[in-house]
Amino acid sequence: MQCGLSPIVGFRFSLHPMTNDFISVIKGALQETDTSNVWMHTDDVSTVIRGKQVHVFNVAKALTLHAAKTGEHVALSGTFSAGCPGDTSGDAYLDKGDNVANTDTTKQYVSSQFALYPMNNPNYMDVIYREVERAKELGVFNESMHYASGIHGDIHDVFAFYEETFTHARSEEHKHLVMTVSMSINSPSHGGL
Amino acid sequence: MQCGLSPIVGFRFSLHPMTNDFISVIKGALQETDTSNVWMHTDDVSTVIRGKQVHVFNVAKALTLHAAKTGEHVALSGTFSAGCPGDTSGDAYLDKGDNVANTDTTKQYVSSQFALYPMNNPNYMDVIYREVERAKELGVFNESMHYASGIHGDIHDVFAFYEETFTHARSEEHKHLVMTVSMSINSPSHGGL
Repeated sequence: MQCGLSPIVGFRFSLHPMTNDFISVIKGALQETDTSNVWMHTDDVSTVIRGKQVHVFNVAKALTLHAAKTGEHVALSGTFSAGCPGDTSGDAYLDKGDNVANTDTTKQYVSSQFALYPMNNPNYMDVIYREVERAKELGVFNESMHYASGIHGDIHDVFAFYEETFTHARSEEHKHLVMTVSMSINSPSHGGL
Repeated sequence: MQCGLSPIVGFRFSLHPMTNDFISVIKGALQETDTSNVWMHTDDVSTVIRGKQVHVFNVAKALTLHAAKTGEHVALSGTFSAGCPGDTSGDAYLDKGDNVANTDTTKQYVSSQFALYPMNNPNYMDVIYREVERAKELGVFNESMHYASGIHGDIHDVFAFYEETFTHARSEEHKHLVMTVSMSINSPSHGGL
């Protein structure tokens, strides 16, 4: 098996609106988001998007933001992946340019948690500690916890951190990287900023 | 750093009822589940339980089953972890016996997806392929997909598979194992068994 032959980034996620109208929240977010720069497929448990990193993160953020703007309590959980040796070259739109399709800058507080899994890298704990430091430097670190780190702030700052850390936590030598993200928005449990 | 000094297994998860009554569904599931065999902590994004593997899986299943029995569309997403070198020895109930506290055998169809991340193991892809074969042998395999594998069936069979695969995908030599699980129940999107 050969590792990391393509620059495909993928994100498998579920958007969970905690409301009886969950279907209309999800469909509305999909309608308001320009997903033309990514390949997308939905099944009965989750949705996967694939393409250039810049577009995968842009679409993930836009879908989340549009769902959040309904005012409903919504949660996003998902896994970003790149460089998996079992991956195929198909189902990705790598011929797209680098201009993002979604540019809504509406502010939205999000509280989230993430974990990095750099695969087949003996120094993976160093990568994790370095990226947690990056979160602190960027002002989005919330708290330490078992199995994850808390990241919060404005949705644009939080997604910018996630995209930056996903870039820096993988390398030519260690191409297979996994990052899980769990995000909560408009929750009655948030302490806020 | 030393790896895997303790037998602590952890599960950080969120339970998402897609209903306006999400708070009562979550609180009800917590009330009906005996969580006395695990350490538990909830924050504004997720809940973490820690303890012996048998109890962590038993409590995870019971919480999910009780939420499912409301008939609402509920989703579970979470990460099982063991052997993390950054883990601490605290916050775990390892002095408990092996008798599980929750024994409700009500049948419930669940559709789910999982991914295994054996850390710092050059042969991790072999582990993953072997465990997918196990799902097929046990009759819970649903379908292949990017970044995950589909697992479905009765909740008890599905959790039995997850516990078994979590046991077999780690070893004395490779102690740090992560397994993500995303589960959907009572969904209008399910094709069913």
